[in-house]
Amino acid sequence: MKEIIKKKLIEFLEEDMPYGDISVVPPREVEAEIVSKENGVLAGVEIVKILFELAEIEVIDSMNDGDLIEAGNVIMRIHGSSESILSTERVALNILMKMSGVATATRRMVEKVRRLNNKVIIAATRKTTPGFRLFEKIAVEIGGGDTHRFSLSDCVMLKDNHIAIAGSLENAMKMRKSFTKKLEVEVGSVDDAIKAAKLGADIIMLDNFTPEMVAEASEALKRLGLRDKVILEVSGEITPENVDEYAALDVDVISSGYITHSAHAIDFSLKVLQ
Amino acid sequence: MKEIIKKKLIEFLEEDMPYGDISVVPPREVEAEIVSKENGVLAGVEIVKILFELAEIEVIDSMNDGDLIEAGNVIMRIHGSSESILSTERVALNILMKMSGVATATRRMVEKVRRLNNKVIIAATRKTTPGFRLFEKIAVEIGGGDTHRFSLSDCVMLKDNHIAIAGSLENAMKMRKSFTKKLEVEVGSVDDAIKAAKLGADIIMLDNFTPEMVAEASEALKRLGLRDKVILEVSGEITPENVDEYAALDVDVISSGYITHSAHAIDFSLKVLQ
Amino acid sequence: MKEIIKKKLIEFLEEDMPYGDISVVPPREVEAEIVSKENGVLAGVEIVKILFELAEIEVIDSMNDGDLIEAGNVIMRIHGSSESILSTERVALNILMKMSGVATATRRMVEKVRRLNNKVIIAATRKTTPGFRLFEKIAVEIGGGDTHRFSLSDCVMLKDNHIAIAGSLENAMKMRKSFTKKLEVEVGSVDDAIKAAKLGADIIMLDNFTPEMVAEASEALKRLGLRDKVILEVSGEITPENVDEYAALDVDVISSGYITHSAHAIDFSLKVLQ
Amino acid sequence: MKEIIKKKLIEFLEEDMPYGDISVVPPREVEAEIVSKENGVLAGVEIVKILFELAEIEVIDSMNDGDLIEAGNVIMRIHGSSESILSTERVALNILMKMSGVATATRRMVEKVRRLNNKVIIAATRKTTPGFRLFEKIAVEIGGGDTHRFSLSDCVMLKDNHIAIAGSLENAMKMRKSFTKKLEVEVGSVDDAIKAAKLGADIIMLDNFTPEMVAEASEALKRLGLRDKVILEVSGEITPENVDEYAALDVDVISSGYITHSAHAIDFSLKVLQ
Amino acid sequence: MKEIIKKKLIEFLEEDMPYGDISVVPPREVEAEIVSKENGVLAGVEIVKILFELAEIEVIDSMNDGDLIEAGNVIMRIHGSSESILSTERVALNILMKMSGVATATRRMVEKVRRLNNKVIIAATRKTTPGFRLFEKIAVEIGGGDTHRFSLSDCVMLKDNHIAIAGSLENAMKMRKSFTKKLEVEVGSVDDAIKAAKLGADIIMLDNFTPEMVAEASEALKRLGLRDKVILEVSGEITPENVDEYAALDVDVISSGYITHSAHAIDFSLKVLQ
Amino acid sequence: MKEIIKKKLIEFLEEDMPYGDISVVPPREVEAEIVSKENGVLAGVEIVKILFELAEIEVIDSMNDGDLIEAGNVIMRIHGSSESILSTERVALNILMKMSGVATATRRMVEKVRRLNNKVIIAATRKTTPGFRLFEKIAVEIGGGDTHRFSLSDCVMLKDNHIAIAGSLENAMKMRKSFTKKLEVEVGSVDDAIKAAKLGADIIMLDNFTPEMVAEASEALKRLGLRDKVILEVSGEITPENVDEYAALDVDVISSGYITHSAHAIDFSLKVLQ
Repeated sequence: MKEIIKKKLIEFLEEDMPYGDISVVPPREVEAEIVSKENGVLAGVEIVKILFELAEIEVIDSMNDGDLIEAGNVIMRIHGSSESILSTERVALNILMKMSGVATATRRMVEKVRRLNNKVIIAATRKTTPGFRLFEKIAVEIGGGDTHRFSLSDCVMLKDNHIAIAGSLENAMKMRKSFTKKLEVEVGSVDDAIKAAKLGADIIMLDNFTPEMVAEASEALKRLGLRDKVILEVSGEITPENVDEYAALDVDVISSGYITHSAHAIDFSLKVLQ
Repeated sequence: MKEIIKKKLIEFLEEDMPYGDISVVPPREVEAEIVSKENGVLAGVEIVKILFELAEIEVIDSMNDGDLIEAGNVIMRIHGSSESILSTERVALNILMKMSGVATATRRMVEKVRRLNNKVIIAATRKTTPGFRLFEKIAVEIGGGDTHRFSLSDCVMLKDNHIAIAGSLENAMKMRKSFTKKLEVEVGSVDDAIKAAKLGADIIMLDNFTPEMVAEASEALKRLGLRDKVILEVSGEITPENVDEYAALDVDVISSGYITHSAHAIDFSLKVLQ
Repeated sequence: MKEIIKKKLIEFLEEDMPYGDISVVPPREVEAEIVSKENGVLAGVEIVKILFELAEIEVIDSMNDGDLIEAGNVIMRIHGSSESILSTERVALNILMKMSGVATATRRMVEKVRRLNNKVIIAATRKTTPGFRLFEKIAVEIGGGDTHRFSLSDCVMLKDNHIAIAGSLENAMKMRKSFTKKLEVEVGSVDDAIKAAKLGADIIMLDNFTPEMVAEASEALKRLGLRDKVILEVSGEITPENVDEYAALDVDVISSGYITHSAHAIDFSLKVLQ
Repeated sequence: MKEIIKKKLIEFLEEDMPYGDISVVPPREVEAEIVSKENGVLAGVEIVKILFELAEIEVIDSMNDGDLIEAGNVIMRIHGSSESILSTERVALNILMKMSGVATATRRMVEKVRRLNNKVIIAATRKTTPGFRLFEKIAVEIGGGDTHRFSLSDCVMLKDNHIAIAGSLENAMKMRKSFTKKLEVEVGSVDDAIKAAKLGADIIMLDNFTPEMVAEASEALKRLGLRDKVILEVSGEITPENVDEYAALDVDVISSGYITHSAHAIDFSLKVLQ
Repeated sequence: MKEIIKKKLIEFLEEDMPYGDISVVPPREVEAEIVSKENGVLAGVEIVKILFELAEIEVIDSMNDGDLIEAGNVIMRIHGSSESILSTERVALNILMKMSGVATATRRMVEKVRRLNNKVIIAATRKTTPGFRLFEKIAVEIGGGDTHRFSLSDCVMLKDNHIAIAGSLENAMKMRKSFTKKLEVEVGSVDDAIKAAKLGADIIMLDNFTPEMVAEASEALKRLGLRDKVILEVSGEITPENVDEYAALDVDVISSGYITHSAHAIDFSLKVLQ
Repeated sequence: MKEIIKKKLIEFLEEDMPYGDISVVPPREVEAEIVSKENGVLAGVEIVKILFELAEIEVIDSMNDGDLIEAGNVIMRIHGSSESILSTERVALNILMKMSGVATATRRMVEKVRRLNNKVIIAATRKTTPGFRLFEKIAVEIGGGDTHRFSLSDCVMLKDNHIAIAGSLENAMKMRKSFTKKLEVEVGSVDDAIKAAKLGADIIMLDNFTPEMVAEASEALKRLGLRDKVILEVSGEITPENVDEYAALDVDVISSGYITHSAHAIDFSLKVLQ
């Protein structure tokens, strides 16, 4: 995996210096530290270590992915040529910023729901930044969340559009699918939730359900002896602000696009030490 | 440029379906529309048109980059094989979401400062998502902002770390630099702002200055007849919330990492029409 | 997906002519046909159509993926510049040869088991040719088989090595895993099959079981009311020759590395028509 | 060459884990061995050593490319993080399987012909798996065979289609060709073999000739004093089963697509040692 | 081949605009012409046509690769969006400049030798610009030269270093080599030329021979009846200035690094028509 | 930057051996030296060191980029496997040849102008070899020149075509441009030079001006108090032969396409030491 990450990191470096770093000063060996400017959950350290290995920068000490950080924490201490450090700095910080932002938002949601429900999973979606999904998914995991689907290739999900095209949920669910992949169905009503469960869906996503509708769906499934045969997921504009409303319900998963697409980035700075 | 964009879009598609879309339903020709779920500034339409061209999806009608959109607006109407549309949907929406988020945040800042200052430029930084910078920079421009540096290769910027390594600002500014590139210096005090101006900096970034310090720097430069020889940029944790404090000051540029790294994404959905 | 395929096809063309086709004859517009030299199941036609589109070769007529073919069948009729046709020929035929070989072996196994068992699935493995897996998996599907895991990223599989490293099956199964992914456990004994089922495995692979052991495992699981909670897969050196022995047993899936790694390729030739 | 191989190996790893290895168990340092499950000729060891170097896995001991192996032989002993070993295992084994399969088939043919003819060369063709040709050609060499053309760029070969397009063999042979490249002509009759030799072909491929036709062609060429001016190659559905029929004839090369496109793969397994 | 060329052209475009063309003017449909500023042999037109196809620029009319051009000649007339034309211009002109420079130098050498010798071949070497070899080799061909080796993979060449490492020419020539590849030996003395011929070299390169030594080598080979068994190539600092000295000698090939590494580029300009 | 260079170097190696080096001799550890065959300015050493690191070749000693070299100078002494050295040799030498050629031509022009003018800058253009620009720009810098624009993305330049399309220079200069980028205008007359200066151009390129016109433009700008507000660049067919004519004039920059597109390459050879 490390070699795959290296290849992506080289692309990120090329993006940030197609013709090198033109802010030239005479290089010398220096120490530097990366300092957090905000509180949050740290993520991206293992990735940035690979970046520094690529750039022949030694990591003297570092905090760990998943650590709680506060403004002012030194999260990494490094040593190397100032030329390498300065030309790698922005890519390193951008990775830390974005990944820590995602991990922090995820952790915040996990903690909020944990007060009310010690089992429910907070999951991400595929609403990620093109080209950066792998890193955002890793950050979700560091934040204590579930990565959900990585891509269109790893779990079947039938949404309203699929069902419309197939003509009916029955038709859509009849299609070929590998026994190694789960089948998730997105539903918009309690009746459809029941129908999907009867047809053998592994996961049912209650899309844009009110808390009341969720409760109703759960009850109905229980009544029919289907509740423990399916994983119930709620989704639809759920953020750290409103996650409470869903946390106490009988659902297994709360998924949120917010944690990847709109998480506030955590700011870091790099200081060369005199 | 279009062919370069195509190459990146294919990488985004590969990220979202390394082994294809396994949510298979029998394909048919359909129309579909992309609908905004929030208000904001639309960005990404020209990019998504290229994506649809790649996927052999016809664009029947669309709104334009830079248009103000409201929740419920149909921003694109398309026609093609349902298989192509469903397997391209998420990449298309992720591009629109992220780019429109950036454009919206940028426009918001521009509008806020315009009420107080009809000249000051809102500019982005290099605090972007690795792998997606080109698109974020385009979105900044669509939102009415200035792209600032694309990379380390297109404008010299000497920051505190460069100066520390070089020993002094004088030393740092002596280094080789092409006559085709501007030289920006980041300063932390009014005295350094004056020194940089005297040494011939094209742009001076007042980093983390209070509004009072900005005023003082501007006055001092005017007194010395240097104010119109330099572009003054303020930077440091500026967001749509606090940009007002800087808008009325005598600065040429307000730069903000927020608009690329933490902008709230604008949500869109794609609906296949029956 | 088509654009992703195109990118791979260009790499295949580069492999076959890093410096172009030096067997130069004066080009002219010609018709040509691709003829099968053996009986089998045709696969690769849709891929080769994309290749010909890339090379600006028109497909006049063609048989379809999944068709039964006999030696002498014209499976494609094309028209274009002889230069394009001759320089694309080998890549086209290699794709058809390999994919049809895989589809034919798969179909043969499916047909053999169908006589005895109308439900059991024939599945592939990850024992594929590096760089060509996507195409081999598509060929398995065309042959009527199940693709099984595409990669290490889409279904958890715990094998003897994982269990040894974790210390026990219990430990191994405790590890983090996304709710969107199935969990398969490879077992070497009936007792372990029961243990895995009790611990909640979705799929149990009976590795190198004799038919008697398979029967025993199935019985034990039925007795414990666990048989319908798991998918039973048998694996281990199963080929079209010996698949009969497993077909009548109570298993859901028979997986075979043979169909991808050792399938006899189906030969085709391309003839330019006078 | 090693760096070129590394690049390809990273692509193979990406193919097998676009989003990493999700079968996660707590990693620890382990020893492991790769064991052959069949008899054959070992090939791929040098390639797999490069793969293990990439994955930071130490090779403690190994057999060599070209070694005869028997079922049960430990062909490699390695040491490293279990995470690296488990996520690299399949790519390593797939390389060994395919390459050893090709080397074994090649060696088998070489040995069969050696009993009758101590000079004739066994050669491969371009009937290889797209994306994996370099490795298959290396395996042919390890098996004692000749790689033949690597691609369309390194040796001119005029086949029936070229001659048809050019109008005649004379026309086809008049075309531009570099003095650094050999010219091979495929012929379907004894007369054409003679004509090609007279026109200066370096190599004449007797395509689908019966042993009698081969003898006749050789005699005719000898009579005309042309036999030692050309290399005679026979080709066309030659496998280890029927190669004997051609071995005793007066030919220089026997080429076979079988050894790359349909060779039975040699199975290997990797065992983590307790 | 065209698709392979396209891929390289996109890389050239990326090199020239990693973040697009910032010299923005409002685009409109325009006609433009590419005009030669010098006399020479035109090369690169077919490549540039592919570039313009990529950029959706229509080629209205053009001269042909290999045409003699004079300063002022309109070599291409195109039509399209000014944005596409201006952002593709430099890549197009750089291709034409370099390729026409190589073709012109090649043609000049060919013409000079033709006056004295109507058979001798002018050939290139591998002294090309990294990343641009394919195009330089095509230009050599357009100029009437022979491409010689494309790479280390298509013709064996044993130079002084190989012989030194192997211990002797005999040893070096014993090594494995495919029957499909020619064997060239570089020699520094008449004796070695004879030895190489006796050992069966296909091509003998007389490296840095004086015209007298060349004559001596040719004579010696004739005397031994070996002259018509080998291709004689002379090489070593041969330019259009001194090629005459070698042209009348009994050699088959004169190879020159000059025509690719130091050819004067032919200048072109692109004019938008009012 | 080093990792970005490595990636390009691997592509150069692939170009020179798509299927490896077939000139096989039994490898052994050797020392070798790279020797200059001409006088000039050395460039490419740092790049070639990275290449040798990739190929696991040790650099024992070397001269430095920018050093003056004479024919016969040993510029690098290396140690490693003969296999690595021989298969890397040509790429290494081609880099040194081309880069030293560019650096030598640049230095020659710099020295010629220095005799007359101790300030004027010699600058390159974008007339570079596609795929090799980064290296040519580095060589210009080593030779003492200015890199000028790297690409269309880092400095605005409005040429005659832009102005024609925009309708007027005023219109063209009104277009959007980032405050971080300079604006250069190419002019063909003294009047236009004045107009551009008045409109605020940062750099004015006097295209194909005679020395008299240059003097006139400079005088006019001085008279208007605009001379020190703009950088004056002269351009147009300037070579080491005619640069003297421009050196004594009041210009800041002399730019020359010649130094990248037509510089005579400096020849080097690699000798394995016995």
